[in-house]
Amino acid sequence: MTILQQHVEVRFTYPVAFTHGLFDSDNTLLRNVVTDDQSHAAKKIYCVIDAGVAEHHPDVSNAIARYCATYSEHLQLVAPPLVVPGGEAIKNNAAPLHTLHEAVNTYGLDRHAYIMAVGGGAVLDMVGYAAATAHRGIRLIRVPTTVLAQDDSGVGVKNGINQFGKKNFLGTFATPYAVLNDFTFLTTLEDRDWLGGVSEAIKVALLKDPVFFAYIETHAAALVQRDLSVMEHVVYRCAQLHLDHIANSGDPFEMGSSRPLDFGHWAAHKLEQLTDYAVRHGEAVAIGIALDTTYAYQKGFLSEADWERVIGSIEALHLPIYHPALSSHIDSADHPHSILAGLREFREHLGGQLTIMLLRGIGEPFEVHEMDGACIRDSITALEARSRATVSV
Amino acid sequence: MTILQQHVEVRFTYPVAFTHGLFDSDNTLLRNVVTDDQSHAAKKIYCVIDAGVAEHHPDVSNAIARYCATYSEHLQLVAPPLVVPGGEAIKNNAAPLHTLHEAVNTYGLDRHAYIMAVGGGAVLDMVGYAAATAHRGIRLIRVPTTVLAQDDSGVGVKNGINQFGKKNFLGTFATPYAVLNDFTFLTTLEDRDWLGGVSEAIKVALLKDPVFFAYIETHAAALVQRDLSVMEHVVYRCAQLHLDHIANSGDPFEMGSSRPLDFGHWAAHKLEQLTDYAVRHGEAVAIGIALDTTYAYQKGFLSEADWERVIGSIEALHLPIYHPALSSHIDSADHPHSILAGLREFREHLGGQLTIMLLRGIGEPFEVHEMDGACIRDSITALEARSRATVSV
Repeated sequence: MTILQQHVEVRFTYPVAFTHGLFDSDNTLLRNVVTDDQSHAAKKIYCVIDAGVAEHHPDVSNAIARYCATYSEHLQLVAPPLVVPGGEAIKNNAAPLHTLHEAVNTYGLDRHAYIMAVGGGAVLDMVGYAAATAHRGIRLIRVPTTVLAQDDSGVGVKNGINQFGKKNFLGTFATPYAVLNDFTFLTTLEDRDWLGGVSEAIKVALLKDPVFFAYIETHAAALVQRDLSVMEHVVYRCAQLHLDHIANSGDPFEMGSSRPLDFGHWAAHKLEQLTDYAVRHGEAVAIGIALDTTYAYQKGFLSEADWERVIGSIEALHLPIYHPALSSHIDSADHPHSILAGLREFREHLGGQLTIMLLRGIGEPFEVHEMDGACIRDSITALEARSRATVSV
Repeated sequence: MTILQQHVEVRFTYPVAFTHGLFDSDNTLLRNVVTDDQSHAAKKIYCVIDAGVAEHHPDVSNAIARYCATYSEHLQLVAPPLVVPGGEAIKNNAAPLHTLHEAVNTYGLDRHAYIMAVGGGAVLDMVGYAAATAHRGIRLIRVPTTVLAQDDSGVGVKNGINQFGKKNFLGTFATPYAVLNDFTFLTTLEDRDWLGGVSEAIKVALLKDPVFFAYIETHAAALVQRDLSVMEHVVYRCAQLHLDHIANSGDPFEMGSSRPLDFGHWAAHKLEQLTDYAVRHGEAVAIGIALDTTYAYQKGFLSEADWERVIGSIEALHLPIYHPALSSHIDSADHPHSILAGLREFREHLGGQLTIMLLRGIGEPFEVHEMDGACIRDSITALEARSRATVSV
């Protein structure tokens, strides 16, 4: 018997840019991105736009067409932008995926052509999966338009759609060709989405950057009052921390069992599913962080003062710390509609040993490999009580 | 405007083993592969078997079940192996892909579980695509059973299925968890497949290793007479050269425009499609090599002596140098059924500039970026004449 040990090293590079007015003709960012590969011919580009964006920015399709016309030496828009419904529903059936694959075929998009996705995280996930699987990968330009997509999901290396009722059951790890964050899109978000995206910033700050956490804490009121310059800093720093983690964690494609950035996410994913995505991802993450922070406090890992800072910040941002779905079937961990089933599903999605991140202080995460059901129940009870008290105030 | 430049480096490692009697209980190779990750629990494994293999090795499903029973501490076979039709047809519709995704869901396979594919290249491609896209990548163990799969496609980093009549329209780059080449399977191949797989060895030898080419040349008769030990050397060296190329070419996931290993493949891919896969991949590659070698000779790049060695070797291996589909619609490059359309499709699949590998000597490849239609036609005419002459002898 002979064994050849194969080693393959792949280096991916992509810019994550922060700008205003991406499709203004005098903004050369997008042009520069497509001319960076030194090729001289005009490149085909196909665009997909989130209906939520098109509604608030009715000129966006025309702006993209004008932009491509201005830079027609470099960019050939092969068809009018395709507008697709936003939100998690777009990931729930395979039809939009097939539509995109058909477009790749119809317009002869090759591996050096571009698919540009303009929208929230769900649209970016779906388009990203389509791009990653056509011809083994068409170049994907992400233009995230929500706080959540700009500060977290849109800058990373994942894509996916849902199947069998399971979030991201289908998907790949694939780096984008470029991420172009246009802050202008944030101004038209509804408050729920504006604030919801801050959850991921709280999460990454709690894991990695106490100074950033203090910034968010101090500026919670400004964020609630929709101060764009504060939000720009939050988005930028949050994206930067996520990018650092992906680049330097040693496991960008998550081949191991640990998923350090998924603090608070086991409950969040399950809660989204249990409420049929009525609770949005950012809100679910806020609740997930509240739950695991309360758990750590009740277990004696985290001080009361730190626990209060975390819960207080979430509340100050008008984000939820509790939802009634947390309490249903809470006494039967095996019930598929119990939040506790989320622990098993979280482990199953990644595989291997259950690995949950907890805090022993702000910026001091650590891993555990089992969770105490009774203590989770107590934490939920405590959060329910506190949320009732807060609402009644 | 601010730009963060993200760099992500991913290191993949996998063993490519060569053995006999892989599923014999005293062969510890497969057990060692699954225990290499140091995890202690028994790992779930789900198997897919090519019907062609099951036909010639009716005991294979039982052998796998016995093997897993013997090593039940490490391997939990979650279901009886699934037998699927082999050959390119398995890649032509999405149903088998969906069946595998359903199995992943039904049996709760996670990212640390194994899917083992036993079969020819088409089955490995389809199962590989299913594994790569479920939960963003279930561990894939490839057990290639044909010469072609053992010496080339099965050791690499690609998977895929066909759509819109285009080969590998859907697919990803994804490294396997392990490749286990069992030479025993080669003994039951029909002659067409036994010899067909040698085409890829000729190809890689012509590109990279004149000594290996001389070996194949010298041992052509032994290969025709089904000398297993000669074939084992051919498979091993060919696999090794492919692995070296993938590891050291600097572009394992083919982000550039060059695809050096695809010598002879632009015509081969098109010929398979034109004949609805009646011409098998290995045969098509033999013809593709014959065509591009004749082209290089006619263009004055390659000497007559070297040309004769290449064509002579293909003939000595009882492989084809011509097929009538090469000649249909040869005068209209735009006709979709003309072999010349294969040039455009080849460029489109990879993207960017057309890049074709030619030879200026054995082991001396070089790239061209355009091909002369008239000279391709002349080369086809020459090959047709020669193949008629050979057949009539």
